[in-house]
Amino acid sequence: MVTHIKNAIDLSGKPLNIAIDNGIITEITEDALLGEANTIIDACGKLAIPGLINCHTHSYMSVFRNIADDVDFETWLFRSIMPLEDRLTNEDAYYGAMLSCIEMLKSGTVCFLDMHMFKGMTVSAARDCGMRAVMSRGLVGSGDDEGGERRIQETMDEKAEFGADERFSFMLGPHAIYTCDEAYLRKVAALAKKEGMGIHIHVSETKNEFDNCIKEHGMTPVEYLDSLGIFDVRAVAAHCVYLTDNDIEILARKGVYVAHNPKSNMKLGNGFAPVKKLINAGVKVCLGTDSQGSNNCLNIFSEMNHMALIHKGTGKDPQAVSARETFEAATRIGAEALGLNGGALEVGKNGDVVLIDLNRPQFYPTNNVLSSLVYSANGSEVDTVVIGGNVVLDNGKVVGVDEKEIFKKVNEIVNRLKKETQQ
Amino acid sequence: MVTHIKNAIDLSGKPLNIAIDNGIITEITEDALLGEANTIIDACGKLAIPGLINCHTHSYMSVFRNIADDVDFETWLFRSIMPLEDRLTNEDAYYGAMLSCIEMLKSGTVCFLDMHMFKGMTVSAARDCGMRAVMSRGLVGSGDDEGGERRIQETMDEKAEFGADERFSFMLGPHAIYTCDEAYLRKVAALAKKEGMGIHIHVSETKNEFDNCIKEHGMTPVEYLDSLGIFDVRAVAAHCVYLTDNDIEILARKGVYVAHNPKSNMKLGNGFAPVKKLINAGVKVCLGTDSQGSNNCLNIFSEMNHMALIHKGTGKDPQAVSARETFEAATRIGAEALGLNGGALEVGKNGDVVLIDLNRPQFYPTNNVLSSLVYSANGSEVDTVVIGGNVVLDNGKVVGVDEKEIFKKVNEIVNRLKKETQQ
Repeated sequence: MVTHIKNAIDLSGKPLNIAIDNGIITEITEDALLGEANTIIDACGKLAIPGLINCHTHSYMSVFRNIADDVDFETWLFRSIMPLEDRLTNEDAYYGAMLSCIEMLKSGTVCFLDMHMFKGMTVSAARDCGMRAVMSRGLVGSGDDEGGERRIQETMDEKAEFGADERFSFMLGPHAIYTCDEAYLRKVAALAKKEGMGIHIHVSETKNEFDNCIKEHGMTPVEYLDSLGIFDVRAVAAHCVYLTDNDIEILARKGVYVAHNPKSNMKLGNGFAPVKKLINAGVKVCLGTDSQGSNNCLNIFSEMNHMALIHKGTGKDPQAVSARETFEAATRIGAEALGLNGGALEVGKNGDVVLIDLNRPQFYPTNNVLSSLVYSANGSEVDTVVIGGNVVLDNGKVVGVDEKEIFKKVNEIVNRLKKETQQ
Repeated sequence: MVTHIKNAIDLSGKPLNIAIDNGIITEITEDALLGEANTIIDACGKLAIPGLINCHTHSYMSVFRNIADDVDFETWLFRSIMPLEDRLTNEDAYYGAMLSCIEMLKSGTVCFLDMHMFKGMTVSAARDCGMRAVMSRGLVGSGDDEGGERRIQETMDEKAEFGADERFSFMLGPHAIYTCDEAYLRKVAALAKKEGMGIHIHVSETKNEFDNCIKEHGMTPVEYLDSLGIFDVRAVAAHCVYLTDNDIEILARKGVYVAHNPKSNMKLGNGFAPVKKLINAGVKVCLGTDSQGSNNCLNIFSEMNHMALIHKGTGKDPQAVSARETFEAATRIGAEALGLNGGALEVGKNGDVVLIDLNRPQFYPTNNVLSSLVYSANGSEVDTVVIGGNVVLDNGKVVGVDEKEIFKKVNEIVNRLKKETQQ
C-alpha cells in the first residue's frame, strides 16, 4: 500500500512531499511525487514532523484524571487511587486506555511505552485506535512467589498473542526497587537478556525511594539496579529525579534511556530531574507524561514546554535544555529508547507523520518553527496523524472511533467506581 | 442591549443561564431566562467561566516570538531584541498588539495589563478586537528630564483620548528601579496619588536588580519602592522573584498585587517567585504572561498549568498552590488588581463570559472541572468569548478581524526588521 503526503512543509519552511510504501518512508522530496498511490493526503501547507513518542505512561489510569488533586501523597495513593484501582475491571482498563489513545493521537503522539496491570487491554485499545505501542506488564514480586511468576507469564502471553503485529513490541516491566525484591529483579534481568527484551522501570522517583535504598542496600537505586544487571539490556528508566554524579556516570556508560516526566514529578512534589546534567553527561533523555493521575494530561507538547522551561528556572540559566534538545527527546531519542524505527522523517524510517496546522496566532511571526513547537504550541494544532502510512487522525478526529461514546463510557466507569468505594 | 447566554453549565455541572444588560450581568439562574434579548447565545452545554485576566504583558512584542530562544540574556536583549525594538514603528506596534489580542481572546483572556512604548497603539488593537485593556505607557526617566516628562504626558494623553470608553483604563507604568531614578519614581508615585491612578511596575525580576538595589540603596527593591510611596496606591508588581520575608510582609501589608509570570521567569533564567509563601502571607497573587519574547505565548491556561505545578516542584509539596488558588489568580484577583468589575460570574459584574467546549478527551472523566481547567486544558477549548455582553470570539474566531491578514502582516514586519538589523 502506497501513501503520498503532498504539499507539506518542513521545519525550515521548505516544501516537503513524502511517499510511504508498505508502512516505510521511501521518498522525501521537495518536488512532486511520481507514481501511483492508494492514498493521497494533501497537506495544504501544513508542517510535517515525525510522530511524537511518549516514553512513560499508564494509559488505563485516565479514569483517575482530576480525581484527587492538591492532596498529600498518602491521601492521593492510599485513600483515593488504590481503592479505585482495586475495583477496575479489564473492560474499565480497556476504555481507560482508549481515552488515553484518543488524547495522545490528538496531540501528535504515535507510540507510547505503557506499564499496565491488565493483560491485552492497552494493546487492544492501541490497535483499535491505529497506534503503535510498547507494552510492559507491571511486574511486582519477590523471589519465586506465584504472583511474580504469573505477571512475567502475562508479559510473555501478551507478547505471544499480539507480537505478530509490527506496531506492537514488548518490554519487561519490573515496577520499582520497592515493589520487587533482589532475587526477582535478578530473574527479570536474566530473562530480558535471554529473550532479547528491553526493561521499563521506575527509578529514583522519590526521596524516600532513594534514602531507603541507601539504608537497605548501601547503594543508590541506580547503583543497586546496575549491580543486578537491569541496565545490561536496553532499559528505560522513568523519572530519575534523585541522582548522584556516580549515578549519572552509570546511566551514561550503560546507555540507559532516562524517561523524563517533568509534570508528574512536580505534581507529586518529587521535584526536578537533573536533566541538564544528564544531557551534558551524554545520557539519552526521552520524554514521558506518566499517567493522568499525576499530570493530568497525556500531551507531549505540554511536556516539551515544561521540559524546556523548568531547567532554565532551576539552573537560573536561559540556555539550559534547548528547544532542539527537547524536540529530540520527544522524537529521535524516544524512538531509540523504545527500539522503534521512527522518530525522524527519513527514507527507511516508519511512515509516522504528524501534520500541524500553522494557521494559529501562536505560530506567528514565523521566526523559528522548531522553537514555536516547544515554546508556543499546545498540541491542539495537530490536524492529521499518519502511522505506518495509515491516516489515524483526520482533521483532528480519530478515524473509526466514536470519541463521544468513549467519553460517556469512562464517565460511567468512574461514577460506578466512586459509588463502590464511597468517594 | 440585552444578551442571553442559555444552556451553559457551571463549574459544578449545574445548568447556567446568564442575562447581561448594558454590559452588566443582571441575572444568573438555573432556570430559563425570561424577557426579550437582542442577542441569544445557545451555549449547548458548554462550560461558562468568568473571562481570564492577564496582569502583565507587552503586547506589541509578539513580533519577537521565537526570534532568539535558548541564548544568554545579553545576546537576547542587546543583540536581538533591542536593535529590533529600536526600529519598530507605531504601525508595527499596532499589528503586534493585534496578534496578541487575537491570541489572548482565543485562549479566554478578556482583559490585560499592558506596558508599552507606542501611544494609542495597543489600546486601538484592543478596541478593534473588542477586548478590555488597562494601558500603562512604560515610563523611563530621571528627575525632570524631558523624556521622562514626555512619557508621563503620553500616559495622560492616551487616557484623555481613550478614557471615555469604559473598556479601557490607565495606570502609571514606571518601568523598573534600574530605569527610573529616585526623583522620578517619587514624582510618579505622587502623580498616581493625585490622579487616583494605579501603578504597574517590574519588581525584583532578576538577581542583579536585587543585588544592585541593596548595594545602591541599602534596601531591597520592595523596601526601596515602598519608601518612595509607589505602594501607596493600587499597585501591580510584576515578577517579584527575589524577595525577603520582610518584602513579603510589606507586599501583604500594602495590599500590593503580585503579577506572577512563571514561564517568563523560567525562560529568562530568573527562577521561581515564592508564590506559596506569598499566598500564605496573604499577598494577592495574580497571573501574567509577560511578552512572547520571553514565554513564548500569551495563553493564561498554559500559565495556570505552570503556576499550579512548579511550586509543588520547588517546595517538594504536592499541596503547594492549588488549582483553586491558581484559577482565582487568573480571574477574581486579576480583576481586582486591574480595578476591574470582573473576574466572577455574579450579578452586578461585567458580562465577560468564556464558554468552553468540554467535548475533548482532556476533560474526561468529569471528576473535577476546575482542576481540569488548570491541569488538563490547554486553552484551545475556548469556543466563545463574550465581553460586556458582546460576542467577540465566536466558534474560535475573532469577530470582525481577518486573522490571516494580521498573521501575514506580522511576518512582513519581522522580515523587514530582520533585514534592517541584519539578523
